[in-house]
Amino acid sequence: MRKCYFDYVATNPLHPQVFEAMLPYFKEEFGNPLSLYEAGMKARNAIENARAQTAALVNSKPSEIIFTCSGAEANNFALRGIALAKQNEGKHVIVSRMEHHSILNSARFLEKSGFAVTYLPADKHGVVEPEAVKKAMTKDTVLISVIHASSEVGTIEPIKEITKIAREHKVIVHTDAVASAGNIPIDVKAGGVDLLSMAAHQFYGPKGAGALYVREGLRIVPLIYGGIQESGRRAGTENVPAIVGMGKAAELAKLEMKERGEHVKKLRDRLISGVLSVENVYLTGHPSDRLPGHASFTVEYIEGESMLLLLASKGMYVASGSACSSKALKASPVLLSMGVPASLAQGSIVFTLGKENTGEDIDYLLAEFPPIIKRLREISPFAKGWDEKEQGNKCYTTSSEQQTE
Amino acid sequence: MRKCYFDYVATNPLHPQVFEAMLPYFKEEFGNPLSLYEAGMKARNAIENARAQTAALVNSKPSEIIFTCSGAEANNFALRGIALAKQNEGKHVIVSRMEHHSILNSARFLEKSGFAVTYLPADKHGVVEPEAVKKAMTKDTVLISVIHASSEVGTIEPIKEITKIAREHKVIVHTDAVASAGNIPIDVKAGGVDLLSMAAHQFYGPKGAGALYVREGLRIVPLIYGGIQESGRRAGTENVPAIVGMGKAAELAKLEMKERGEHVKKLRDRLISGVLSVENVYLTGHPSDRLPGHASFTVEYIEGESMLLLLASKGMYVASGSACSSKALKASPVLLSMGVPASLAQGSIVFTLGKENTGEDIDYLLAEFPPIIKRLREISPFAKGWDEKEQGNKCYTTSSEQQTE
Repeated sequence: MRKCYFDYVATNPLHPQVFEAMLPYFKEEFGNPLSLYEAGMKARNAIENARAQTAALVNSKPSEIIFTCSGAEANNFALRGIALAKQNEGKHVIVSRMEHHSILNSARFLEKSGFAVTYLPADKHGVVEPEAVKKAMTKDTVLISVIHASSEVGTIEPIKEITKIAREHKVIVHTDAVASAGNIPIDVKAGGVDLLSMAAHQFYGPKGAGALYVREGLRIVPLIYGGIQESGRRAGTENVPAIVGMGKAAELAKLEMKERGEHVKKLRDRLISGVLSVENVYLTGHPSDRLPGHASFTVEYIEGESMLLLLASKGMYVASGSACSSKALKASPVLLSMGVPASLAQGSIVFTLGKENTGEDIDYLLAEFPPIIKRLREISPFAKGWDEKEQGNKCYTTSSEQQTE
Repeated sequence: MRKCYFDYVATNPLHPQVFEAMLPYFKEEFGNPLSLYEAGMKARNAIENARAQTAALVNSKPSEIIFTCSGAEANNFALRGIALAKQNEGKHVIVSRMEHHSILNSARFLEKSGFAVTYLPADKHGVVEPEAVKKAMTKDTVLISVIHASSEVGTIEPIKEITKIAREHKVIVHTDAVASAGNIPIDVKAGGVDLLSMAAHQFYGPKGAGALYVREGLRIVPLIYGGIQESGRRAGTENVPAIVGMGKAAELAKLEMKERGEHVKKLRDRLISGVLSVENVYLTGHPSDRLPGHASFTVEYIEGESMLLLLASKGMYVASGSACSSKALKASPVLLSMGVPASLAQGSIVFTLGKENTGEDIDYLLAEFPPIIKRLREISPFAKGWDEKEQGNKCYTTSSEQQTE
């Protein structure tokens, strides 16, 4: 049976060159980067090299990169670290409803700690409108966090516009670029954000390595206290091989970004038009401003998990919503915030493509997908009688619009 | 030139069998453990297997193990997570002055957050006296954190006695076992602690993997919020290869602990008696209740860094104080808390042995060490004229006592 991995947003396979770069640091070069002798110095140099490579990916200075162990850690660090550092200036934070749980749950933690949090809605395409950001701001606002691109619906947010508004009010901007960094061009200097999170395993790097860009001069309270690693801003013995891997993956991503992007975009466009030819299937997220390898849909009368499992039985690996909530089996809060009704949100399915995917993978998917949907609808209790009832539904209309845009 | 690694407390080389166990999870089995299809399931199973292996090392249930990315993260998580969970019962925390910076600096963070913290002193051997714990307790005390064994002076603390006292007052006990777990037997059920931190790279496992044992039923506030990983208690895409490596390392450590311990203890005892035959060199830490591979000293009239660099020039890698502060070049707070005067604390040197060390390594060290000390003292400004002045010094007496015990 053919095997097709269509879940790059969950995690990427490690690039062989990345693995090669990591290898020496497992074995010969196992020293602790803080040790003063040669083995420590070699590990230290390897980390600084990776820092420069990672910085180059987003056009920051190396000293503005703090390594973490995951995108989630970077998000927690950014939100709580800035809120704490700025709490004497104001205790209001703005996040969008498009955010990952690591932002939303950090925001809830801040609420428990006495901060006020505004949760911004998105439009039907998952776009957080800059105007809404403007309206939400108060004199107490110290931080805005809006995702760079949604891992669930692929929408790329208007961060530059949001940052411009924030700048006028001297409010700090963080963006969670876990799904986008390494996949689309990012320039923190041109974009103007103050903090940006990334995760290596989203661009063919290893699990266990992430980073937070923190603009020079910006004070941030550590999330993990301890030794003097990362200039005292993030403690813990460095995972040298993973950091080296992140650097190498960043270097390769920068080098191959255009080629990789064009490759997946071409496949994605075929996938989208093929999948949408099935009845009562709707694209979620923005029709054009979306991640190049990202194709997400809602399928009426069917549960996402059933599709996922039947596709898996045919060797195709896809997601239903974000990886971090896929086992939670709840309707995606992101889709709900976009106005998708709960019943339709249950039928969410997300295909994300990577450099290993081929045209044959798409052929295979497009041949197998329609009969799977047909079969599931035949056994679905929701499909019977719901058809007419839902015809006039707002969401149905909304989704049809998306289809034709 | 002979190469001798005497800095196992900074980090351990990866066990070849551990690396073999990790390998498949970098390549073929790269799935996200939260994905619902087969690749996710395999990664999930690998993590649960590692959890059982890690639990067995300290005699806990698998469900009581939360994976982290480092010992420092586990320490931050324990201290702040319990303090927050218990803050309505009281806002007083006790830590010892023997603690690692990840505990001390977390305690300072708690102070800034409105908690009162008592820092317990240690005796001249680095022992935190249970009686001192008893005296420090107030009706507001919710948590006590005392290190299991010191990475700087090797002393194994009387955790069982401390826990007994805490139990009587219904106070939670955390112990930082980063330097000891995997190296000496630990039984959380017999020992009675509520939380215990470990780090894989301290027992031939990979960097980037740590764990916190949390006694069943004990509520802890997360340090990293996000997805539903680790039962919602610690978010972030799991570093599957590192976790698998930690499990394998734990399994091997349990299996080989006795043999490894006897091997390093024999070498260490030769090392200690050899090094102490040099004039004005004193053992730090407890003479008998110490980690089997740990030998730490203060050398009068010399700076630790000079010794470290000269030994390194002869191919011998040692530490001067804890790895996390070795680049800070400050007198060790741990030594100062034990009553070692600052001038002598500057001459700290720490040898830590592992299973790769041989009798020839010790021969080489004992041949090279005395001439290095002689040479350094010849050029030391401190050695001239300080001799007589320091003779009556309290610390000198203290250290002499240690030598003869």
